[in-house]
Amino acid sequence: MSTASGLLVDIAEVGVDRQRGGYSRHGFDRVELELREWFTAEAVKRGLDVRVDGNGNLWAWWGAPGPNAVVTGSHLDSVPGGGAFDGPLGVVSALAAVDALRARGFVPRRPFALLVFAEEEGGRFGVACLGSRLLTGRIDADAARRLTDPDGVTLADAVRSAGLDPAGLGRDAKALRDIGCFVELHVEQGRGLVDLAAPIGMASSILAHGRWRFSFSGEGNHAGATPIGDRRDPMLPASNVVLAARRAASTVDGARATVGRILPTPGGTNVIASSVDLWLDARAGDDATTRAVVAEITAAAEAAAQAEGCLLRVTEESYGDTVHFDAGLRDELAAALGGVPALPTGAGHDAGILAADVPTAMVFVRNPTGVSHAPAEFAEPADCEAGVAALVTVLDQLNR
Amino acid sequence: MSTASGLLVDIAEVGVDRQRGGYSRHGFDRVELELREWFTAEAVKRGLDVRVDGNGNLWAWWGAPGPNAVVTGSHLDSVPGGGAFDGPLGVVSALAAVDALRARGFVPRRPFALLVFAEEEGGRFGVACLGSRLLTGRIDADAARRLTDPDGVTLADAVRSAGLDPAGLGRDAKALRDIGCFVELHVEQGRGLVDLAAPIGMASSILAHGRWRFSFSGEGNHAGATPIGDRRDPMLPASNVVLAARRAASTVDGARATVGRILPTPGGTNVIASSVDLWLDARAGDDATTRAVVAEITAAAEAAAQAEGCLLRVTEESYGDTVHFDAGLRDELAAALGGVPALPTGAGHDAGILAADVPTAMVFVRNPTGVSHAPAEFAEPADCEAGVAALVTVLDQLNR
Repeated sequence: MSTASGLLVDIAEVGVDRQRGGYSRHGFDRVELELREWFTAEAVKRGLDVRVDGNGNLWAWWGAPGPNAVVTGSHLDSVPGGGAFDGPLGVVSALAAVDALRARGFVPRRPFALLVFAEEEGGRFGVACLGSRLLTGRIDADAARRLTDPDGVTLADAVRSAGLDPAGLGRDAKALRDIGCFVELHVEQGRGLVDLAAPIGMASSILAHGRWRFSFSGEGNHAGATPIGDRRDPMLPASNVVLAARRAASTVDGARATVGRILPTPGGTNVIASSVDLWLDARAGDDATTRAVVAEITAAAEAAAQAEGCLLRVTEESYGDTVHFDAGLRDELAAALGGVPALPTGAGHDAGILAADVPTAMVFVRNPTGVSHAPAEFAEPADCEAGVAALVTVLDQLNR
Repeated sequence: MSTASGLLVDIAEVGVDRQRGGYSRHGFDRVELELREWFTAEAVKRGLDVRVDGNGNLWAWWGAPGPNAVVTGSHLDSVPGGGAFDGPLGVVSALAAVDALRARGFVPRRPFALLVFAEEEGGRFGVACLGSRLLTGRIDADAARRLTDPDGVTLADAVRSAGLDPAGLGRDAKALRDIGCFVELHVEQGRGLVDLAAPIGMASSILAHGRWRFSFSGEGNHAGATPIGDRRDPMLPASNVVLAARRAASTVDGARATVGRILPTPGGTNVIASSVDLWLDARAGDDATTRAVVAEITAAAEAAAQAEGCLLRVTEESYGDTVHFDAGLRDELAAALGGVPALPTGAGHDAGILAADVPTAMVFVRNPTGVSHAPAEFAEPADCEAGVAALVTVLDQLNR
């Protein structure tokens, strides 16, 4: 019988990022494909029937497929230089839960599946929760096919390389009908459970969340020969966006605004950049507040661009309104778990995308560092096994 | 008989950067090695004897090697996404000048060589004028061998791959004795000659110039789940450096301070960076002023790092004091050219490095855009040929 920690050890060497630290595992790249093969082998070993849907999500059925199945899972990809738990913990816990359920003689009375979503972090194609957005039709399939990674590879080409037909990308009504409810177990991405001294909790809501690309263009030129007064340097307004994001988010309770990715072109030390792209990640408690925060940052960006004689184009790359998880389901499962606490989160999840279509719930596992999307992300082995036990209880409850 | 423009056309396809625009040709990379082979073939075609010195600089001798030679040349590498003229114009003009000199029956009375310096832009290993710094001993050979490119390849490995012995890197007293005087023809990197309506000019001086790496470390974390008050985000102080650089340079006549390269780690959209490296290029009329500008920027960086709970390490990657070209040589050559104007420049050059050891001069060719280190860098074909004619006059003058 496998433990979650033991299964994580099995994949501990896959996708280690020697430059950034942590892991870099991105949708349909060599590393993520290796993890998918590993998952498939583990599922087959457990007698599950593995199928890939048209959007590249992996399903492992215990018995005959849906409709109205109990489904649990998460994702295998990471942010660049991410931690070992965000995503994989939900996948390995689902595999360990199957072992534990079988050991106790569990028989699925409803269809039952594990589900691994593709490219949840958007680390390669820029759109978070890509697999679940495609499945639910929350992103246009044509637009998705045209998404490109930093090397210019389109999503269409990437899924083709992975042996899938890009024509199959898009809303999958049959797959949606197959999901009766979805439970995602996930490492907590803050100190909520640490502060409550609780190993396990459930999600109540997810902040509204979007990604915006700010593209400034100015005039590339020589860093030594160009007088300051002659410059149109897009690094200036770009830097103002970073500061404006902090200012805007600081004044709104619960809001977050972050610039973690910035790309000057051409990027030479002795070259004034001709253009700068940066990505704003902004989130807040509701749609109106999120929009207001982004509007304030955009206004600052426009003023700074104008002051420097630069042009600005802002593109919304993804957006999702606040998610409130199904309260009935959450209360039922929290009670089955002996009354674990419910917590809001600022992090997006495939479960949040699915929540508009099917009842979904999330089980959080305590993270002693509170850090996520970084190598310091952690969960104690004992807490991981408490997570598996909680998942077993939840799945058993949903099987009634 | 070749023209400078015609020779530039021969290499117009080598090193085109489809992502950034312009050219990316870096020291000892595949592209620069192709250009070196091209130069060698062109020199051999002209009966010149090509030799590579211990630092990877290419010498093409017309007749027997030095000492006390008249030497002319420039470099073939570019900044990332650079223009077609910065460097190559001086090399192709030297080749075209050999043709023109031979056509008029020129016979070298002093040893005579063309010289192509390696990695002038520092686009790969971060140190500008690397070939001339090594030759003159202005950079420690051990430190140079340990320089790494963005992929972690050391200079030692790169020169070994190019067929050179890394043990040969370092000050080359014999090569220095071979140079009686050095003349570098270069596209102008500003609008000085445009404003004077002059196709040709000469350099009077080069600004003091250095490169500093600012490394901020904070705490990588989740962009959604981490409250603003809990953050130690190194993008904040990094952005302050960009703005401080502009402020500091704006208040000092002739000073320049630029951040054109910034690298957050891990660089994910939904990740607070754990560290940010950025490179400051700063220049001013003299050493004290340059140091004062950098000190002001560093103080702002330290204050901003402290305010965000981040650590800062500042590393001086290269520095060179103001260069005043040999006034006697400049006046002699300007007179031979019919009294062309002399201009200061903010751009660094191998001629500036050599100036401390041997008499050097620079011939500038008008650049109608005034732009350099970018695809818009340009020189009209007629001005390029005027440059070749000027170089012929200068070399003939120095041969007396």
